[in-house]
Amino acid sequence: MLDCKYHYLKYIQSRDLVPAACMTDSKGDRSLPPSRQADKDQYVRIVAEKKGGIVVRGAKLHTTGAVNSHEIIVMPTRALQAEDRDYAVAFAVPAETKGVTLIYGRQPSDARRLEENQADIGNMFYGGCEAMVVFEDVFVPEERIFLKGEYTMAGRLVELFAAHHRTSYGGCKVGVGDVLIGATAAIAEAQGTQSAAHVKDKLAEMIHLNETLHAGALAAAGRGYRTTSGACAVDPLLANVCKLNVTRYPFEIARLAQDIAGGLLVTMPSLADKENPEIGEYFRKYLVGKEGVDAERRIRLLRLIENITLGTGAVSYLTESVHGAGSPQAQKIMITRLADLEANKSYAFDICGL
Amino acid sequence: MLDCKYHYLKYIQSRDLVPAACMTDSKGDRSLPPSRQADKDQYVRIVAEKKGGIVVRGAKLHTTGAVNSHEIIVMPTRALQAEDRDYAVAFAVPAETKGVTLIYGRQPSDARRLEENQADIGNMFYGGCEAMVVFEDVFVPEERIFLKGEYTMAGRLVELFAAHHRTSYGGCKVGVGDVLIGATAAIAEAQGTQSAAHVKDKLAEMIHLNETLHAGALAAAGRGYRTTSGACAVDPLLANVCKLNVTRYPFEIARLAQDIAGGLLVTMPSLADKENPEIGEYFRKYLVGKEGVDAERRIRLLRLIENITLGTGAVSYLTESVHGAGSPQAQKIMITRLADLEANKSYAFDICGL
Amino acid sequence: MLDCKYHYLKYIQSRDLVPAACMTDSKGDRSLPPSRQADKDQYVRIVAEKKGGIVVRGAKLHTTGAVNSHEIIVMPTRALQAEDRDYAVAFAVPAETKGVTLIYGRQPSDARRLEENQADIGNMFYGGCEAMVVFEDVFVPEERIFLKGEYTMAGRLVELFAAHHRTSYGGCKVGVGDVLIGATAAIAEAQGTQSAAHVKDKLAEMIHLNETLHAGALAAAGRGYRTTSGACAVDPLLANVCKLNVTRYPFEIARLAQDIAGGLLVTMPSLADKENPEIGEYFRKYLVGKEGVDAERRIRLLRLIENITLGTGAVSYLTESVHGAGSPQAQKIMITRLADLEANKSYAFDICGL
Amino acid sequence: MLDCKYHYLKYIQSRDLVPAACMTDSKGDRSLPPSRQADKDQYVRIVAEKKGGIVVRGAKLHTTGAVNSHEIIVMPTRALQAEDRDYAVAFAVPAETKGVTLIYGRQPSDARRLEENQADIGNMFYGGCEAMVVFEDVFVPEERIFLKGEYTMAGRLVELFAAHHRTSYGGCKVGVGDVLIGATAAIAEAQGTQSAAHVKDKLAEMIHLNETLHAGALAAAGRGYRTTSGACAVDPLLANVCKLNVTRYPFEIARLAQDIAGGLLVTMPSLADKENPEIGEYFRKYLVGKEGVDAERRIRLLRLIENITLGTGAVSYLTESVHGAGSPQAQKIMITRLADLEANKSYAFDICGL
Repeated sequence: MLDCKYHYLKYIQSRDLVPAACMTDSKGDRSLPPSRQADKDQYVRIVAEKKGGIVVRGAKLHTTGAVNSHEIIVMPTRALQAEDRDYAVAFAVPAETKGVTLIYGRQPSDARRLEENQADIGNMFYGGCEAMVVFEDVFVPEERIFLKGEYTMAGRLVELFAAHHRTSYGGCKVGVGDVLIGATAAIAEAQGTQSAAHVKDKLAEMIHLNETLHAGALAAAGRGYRTTSGACAVDPLLANVCKLNVTRYPFEIARLAQDIAGGLLVTMPSLADKENPEIGEYFRKYLVGKEGVDAERRIRLLRLIENITLGTGAVSYLTESVHGAGSPQAQKIMITRLADLEANKSYAFDICGL
Repeated sequence: MLDCKYHYLKYIQSRDLVPAACMTDSKGDRSLPPSRQADKDQYVRIVAEKKGGIVVRGAKLHTTGAVNSHEIIVMPTRALQAEDRDYAVAFAVPAETKGVTLIYGRQPSDARRLEENQADIGNMFYGGCEAMVVFEDVFVPEERIFLKGEYTMAGRLVELFAAHHRTSYGGCKVGVGDVLIGATAAIAEAQGTQSAAHVKDKLAEMIHLNETLHAGALAAAGRGYRTTSGACAVDPLLANVCKLNVTRYPFEIARLAQDIAGGLLVTMPSLADKENPEIGEYFRKYLVGKEGVDAERRIRLLRLIENITLGTGAVSYLTESVHGAGSPQAQKIMITRLADLEANKSYAFDICGL
Repeated sequence: MLDCKYHYLKYIQSRDLVPAACMTDSKGDRSLPPSRQADKDQYVRIVAEKKGGIVVRGAKLHTTGAVNSHEIIVMPTRALQAEDRDYAVAFAVPAETKGVTLIYGRQPSDARRLEENQADIGNMFYGGCEAMVVFEDVFVPEERIFLKGEYTMAGRLVELFAAHHRTSYGGCKVGVGDVLIGATAAIAEAQGTQSAAHVKDKLAEMIHLNETLHAGALAAAGRGYRTTSGACAVDPLLANVCKLNVTRYPFEIARLAQDIAGGLLVTMPSLADKENPEIGEYFRKYLVGKEGVDAERRIRLLRLIENITLGTGAVSYLTESVHGAGSPQAQKIMITRLADLEANKSYAFDICGL
Repeated sequence: MLDCKYHYLKYIQSRDLVPAACMTDSKGDRSLPPSRQADKDQYVRIVAEKKGGIVVRGAKLHTTGAVNSHEIIVMPTRALQAEDRDYAVAFAVPAETKGVTLIYGRQPSDARRLEENQADIGNMFYGGCEAMVVFEDVFVPEERIFLKGEYTMAGRLVELFAAHHRTSYGGCKVGVGDVLIGATAAIAEAQGTQSAAHVKDKLAEMIHLNETLHAGALAAAGRGYRTTSGACAVDPLLANVCKLNVTRYPFEIARLAQDIAGGLLVTMPSLADKENPEIGEYFRKYLVGKEGVDAERRIRLLRLIENITLGTGAVSYLTESVHGAGSPQAQKIMITRLADLEANKSYAFDICGL
């Protein structure tokens, strides 16, 4: 297996390939494990072994960037028992492999990208996309298999990957937060409210929350350690603490951004109306900010804030902050498991004289 | 003036007309009062007096329902000083009056309503729309004027209206909250998570927050009083307390709804894909919930939650909850002004022996 | 039974007696019901029936005001099953009844009441006390028994009582909050910080939170109804919502009060030091507030804030706000049970087209 | 000056002396700077220069550990202007120096340490004390002066010191949090509630909040840098972020601890009652926990939780968490000043096409 991973790594490095990771299965009834689902394909599984490889079936959801990736990497989404042995499978295949189908997901306001006037997009240059990746009896050759039936390792693999992924959110979402904070500070200046005490206080709070997320990632990485393989691993407790905050603060940061932005955020006309012969004049006259700030500047900033808090950007900034890298309850469970409660209890016993 | 209001009321009642209220001016530089703006039209004002009426100019933003209303009612948005006398104006005109232009606002995911397959709309029957209402030298006949230059009354008028409006949010947004709570409970059942302790706890929290908003409105109304005119007024302190909570809790309720809904909320394919000859089969197979729950049922519920927390419904449920009926800081100021701090201080002095 | 209650009510009214209510049993292992405890006396129970009455044994905790009451009223603390029949008992006895022992509880800073100089008490006139009430084979005559073995009624009795009790907290704790807000506003003025924007904002927040608690009680009472007996009952859902907020906001109000009060709150010398021949001069010179505010005024206000947030007053304002009238989880359970989730789900189904 | 500091450092090291740091002045009217106070002594100042040294007067509040320290170090509490030159003074003197008076502060429940039976103290071995340190015309010899009139350096000195101090709170208060979490987990086990879902969830939340504080300190230190002097400095933005969280979370951790502990926390009798010939039997019988947990074990754990959340320990865990190392507003101001808002704005401009 180690051999497979090594060769695969060399292969994607030598060709400068972009990989996408598939983790979350379709799951069916979430209260049941893979092998007890009514439809056994609700988790990706090995349906046959052939000479030189395996045949897999199932579907992975929420695969960010799959449609613009060369390689599709698949791994399990949860700890597995002996009865789930067929579900203990990890592998990589090129995106164009026979039997692989990508179904593109919708996002709020996604159709704005297809409009003639692009200005209502808000975020002019960046964006993500999600896809459901279906594997219909896909053949995976041996050299591309990383896990095959070793069910005892699935849980550990998920935990290790999740710890890194959760830490990364203390950088990724913090960067989006920086942009949102910048846009909010800029709209306050554009509208002449930047000196109001409550606006200054809310901006400070936004920065504070965003940097608290950042601190979580810095701490998890700073307390990281080198494994015997030579790779680096983050501190798992702090990684989960980092991510659990990420499931909360972006909603509050978004709320404060909307507070400072004002109601125009959701009532403004299309930027295309600026050049409309009938109403363009009103657009340009009545949507200005303070002196020197024209309507286009103001509306572009608001469209960006709309994008991040209510549009395609909110997919990544809000909902993905909740569920990406594992949902909040997954972090709560890990935090309890990783904390040293026995040590804490012993301190308490000593100090109260027991 | 009272006469005008009485006749207007009779008129709209007798014809079963739907009125929309215009309050928020375009404002320009928010740190300056109306008469000190570089462009004097940034607040609606009287630009001329004519025989039998007045001529008004300016623009009102955020007018919910303007495009489907018969009558447009205008009132000031803030307290005014003597220098702002021309801005002390309230009146009503039919929507089709010469010089009145409505500019329709955009909303997240608004274009889904124009798509062939309507299923991605989420909310199949209801929705709101916002418009900017421009008054370009509109003539208002005397019998339709309710305020003309009485600047000292503007602040009081705004406060009275705001108190009622703020109380109404403890019903309006609570109703949307009920729908969101219902959709969230239903998706938990569809996905087989309804018995997980953390899901039950989060649903209880959603209900609790929603009912706290409701309690604010019930209390403000319950402590209401009859004015000498015979009309009923709400308790203004409790009205502001009600609204300030409305600026906060819907974001937390939305976050909890997204938590329970799962990541599919923002990665799911279009419901139109269900019937697609190539991928429809995968849609129907892999997007099912627990046994007995087909993919359509699950996706329709998720589309509704998407609508309320990230789509057209979020305009009303989230951003409007912040800014409608006045922004949070307006409530904070009123709460301090309306509370009886002197009484509270006297209790403290007594009790600590001063 | 109704007869007993009627006569007892007449009796305490005619003699102007003060009763105290005993509800919470000692409980032993909280995960076990009364009849499965290793020690059967961990819930108050009927140990014998005698001619003309019953004999009871057990202990009730947390009885506020027991030591200054004439009559002790006892009722069950939870719903009961058939096997717990002996625990379905409610009655009243005079405090001096043979076999009744009151054990006074300690409170933070309680010994300050015994000090020569009373000034460090903070709250000069009021205070509560808690006691554990032990019943060692106490005989209760028939006419003082209100419940005897009717185990099916215990749960309903607890719910009805709890709803009223929970509503009352939206008045009781709000009154303490008013005093704390008054003391905090006064210390801000004494120290010259009352005009700082963040201080004004924090005071507004304190008022807002306190009035949100108040609104809960007003709403629960306002939606109350008259029962067939002629008595009035509060709305049970809103009563639980009211109380659940009470378990949270006083801690935040206390935190804000301490924020505005400043660190001197926990480092100030005894007020007795003011007259000390050696250090009194320093006390009077260095502990003044802004011009015109002497050290005594400042210290007395701080002692009151200390009392409510860290002293004997915190027993009632903080911990009792959490547990009095039932702990937070009890409210969460009731909120879920009393909400009409089925109606909410039906709204969601309609709106998303199911 | 550097010379002075070097020799002083050598001196305290060579003798193994414990120093205490005095920072917060008495301040009088907090809205006025030092030199504009009615009483010029409200900030420690140089009142005279003499041969070989200076004479200082004033008082420093909140000096933790002063009464058990050998040396008293004094530094300014704020940035200073030219007019405040006499207040730009830093020095060290032995605690027994002529003119130095320490006035011991009171704490909640402090008198329990003087009671015969020590068990109600809660924390049997540790505790802090606060003192007000008065300097009445104290002579400070030149070799003990570190700052004398260099007013431009006061602000920078305060910021540097504060950044370290604020970071340290992400260790100090986290350690107390560990003890409180341990005591809370232990009381849940003692009372048989440790398996309830809401108890597990609340413990996980307590750990999560505590580790979020810890992450702040780890991040501030991890991003620290070596100054040209060879000393290490923490990242000032993250240091302030760390401390601002410390001003909030301990109150929530304390609330959750009280929630799990139960109401007995504030109603339990003195542990001394356990051996009382009249009531000791009731104490031992009715205050047990689940099977195998005697009353003493339970009460000792509760006394420890009381100590940290409502007693002498709350001085350090709650109020000092708010004000120690600077009050919340000081952190908000620094966070805004240290954040790179201009960079954030430029990202926003780029992305929205401006």
